[in-house]
Amino acid sequence: MATILVTAGPTREPIDPVRFLSNESSGRMGFAIAAAALAAGHEVILIAGPVHLPTPAGVRRIDVVTAREMLAALKQHFSACDALYMAAAVADWRPKRVLSGKWRAKDGGTQTTSLELVRNPDLLATVARAKLRGKARTVIGFALESGAGEARARAKLRRKNLDFVVLNGPAALNATRTSVIIHGADGTRVALMNRTKEAVARALVGLVARPVRAAVRSRRTKAERAAR
Amino acid sequence: MATILVTAGPTREPIDPVRFLSNESSGRMGFAIAAAALAAGHEVILIAGPVHLPTPAGVRRIDVVTAREMLAALKQHFSACDALYMAAAVADWRPKRVLSGKWRAKDGGTQTTSLELVRNPDLLATVARAKLRGKARTVIGFALESGAGEARARAKLRRKNLDFVVLNGPAALNATRTSVIIHGADGTRVALMNRTKEAVARALVGLVARPVRAAVRSRRTKAERAAR
Repeated sequence: MATILVTAGPTREPIDPVRFLSNESSGRMGFAIAAAALAAGHEVILIAGPVHLPTPAGVRRIDVVTAREMLAALKQHFSACDALYMAAAVADWRPKRVLSGKWRAKDGGTQTTSLELVRNPDLLATVARAKLRGKARTVIGFALESGAGEARARAKLRRKNLDFVVLNGPAALNATRTSVIIHGADGTRVALMNRTKEAVARALVGLVARPVRAAVRSRRTKAERAAR
Repeated sequence: MATILVTAGPTREPIDPVRFLSNESSGRMGFAIAAAALAAGHEVILIAGPVHLPTPAGVRRIDVVTAREMLAALKQHFSACDALYMAAAVADWRPKRVLSGKWRAKDGGTQTTSLELVRNPDLLATVARAKLRGKARTVIGFALESGAGEARARAKLRRKNLDFVVLNGPAALNATRTSVIIHGADGTRVALMNRTKEAVARALVGLVARPVRAAVRSRRTKAERAAR
């Protein structure tokens, strides 16, 4: 049994006590991966943004709201995991200042305004750095591309030191069926067209079965060597 | 039987195909009002932003996403209604331009950016103008105030030509229990503290029972006069 860490859903970046920036992610893909990993006999930790989904029984769920909260949870649990699925749609930007009171435009007449934004930390890049230092871990990223995104997904795979990147289009965000293309760091390319998210989740969990087992075996060997 | 129009939930204002501005409204207050109005024997039309709530059986539900879509639905149905409950948390602002592709910062290095916003149409003001022209209709607005908001709520009552304004704090947005203060155009003030949203909904439907019945009677009288 390996420990599988999954992030799911959107993050919300507050503007004031009621308003926020967010995105359309339903969390279904990440929750399906968590359920599939559990069914495959793994221990599963699910870090979830604000979604309306029930926790699969047996999964340890950690609820977060913002990208920075998700990063904190990720840092806390990444070192103990054997594989990470970054299925969350993390907000790239957050408002520069969060107002403690409700945001109001100056006077009634203003018809335009602007919201200053700062870049959120790159969760995958942070994880990739930790990965270089620590034990062997499989990291699976997701890329949401509205154009022809395969080249961009491959670039993300290399840039962020991922083992796999799962490319899907915006149509996938709130749907039950989806089409994905999985690019591996070893040059493999697998297309799964018009599948349920559950079927894609099983395929994704299957992808890391070998590396995860290998990682577990290698740890055992080390532990056995240490015990000698 | 009167026709009751209810708006509920947040609106979402798209930035690009996946990102948006929104707010914390769960839609529970509006859905509770719709259910209470139905239980009181009224015909109910519910205009709902993106929420995760089941439609009360017997309610006619119209789903919308943006403030402008909500306004269009409101314009279409306001003339036929006897009372309107504006329980939706309509976004005041929307991005000036909606990108057709996924929004990307120029180059990797940019750490700050800004999002240009324009003011959304004021749905209550639009309705108030229609109200001045048409038949007698009761309009109930909602004010969400993070500070001491009673003076502001009363100002909204007058400025937007409302019959009642329901003041609640941000804590109400995603909770099952709530505290509200109802200000009437006739100077009445009713405080309902720590009630379920269902109990508040019944009280709110009760508030307009008389004006609504009076309006129906007055229409009938006109119709009877016209028939003579």
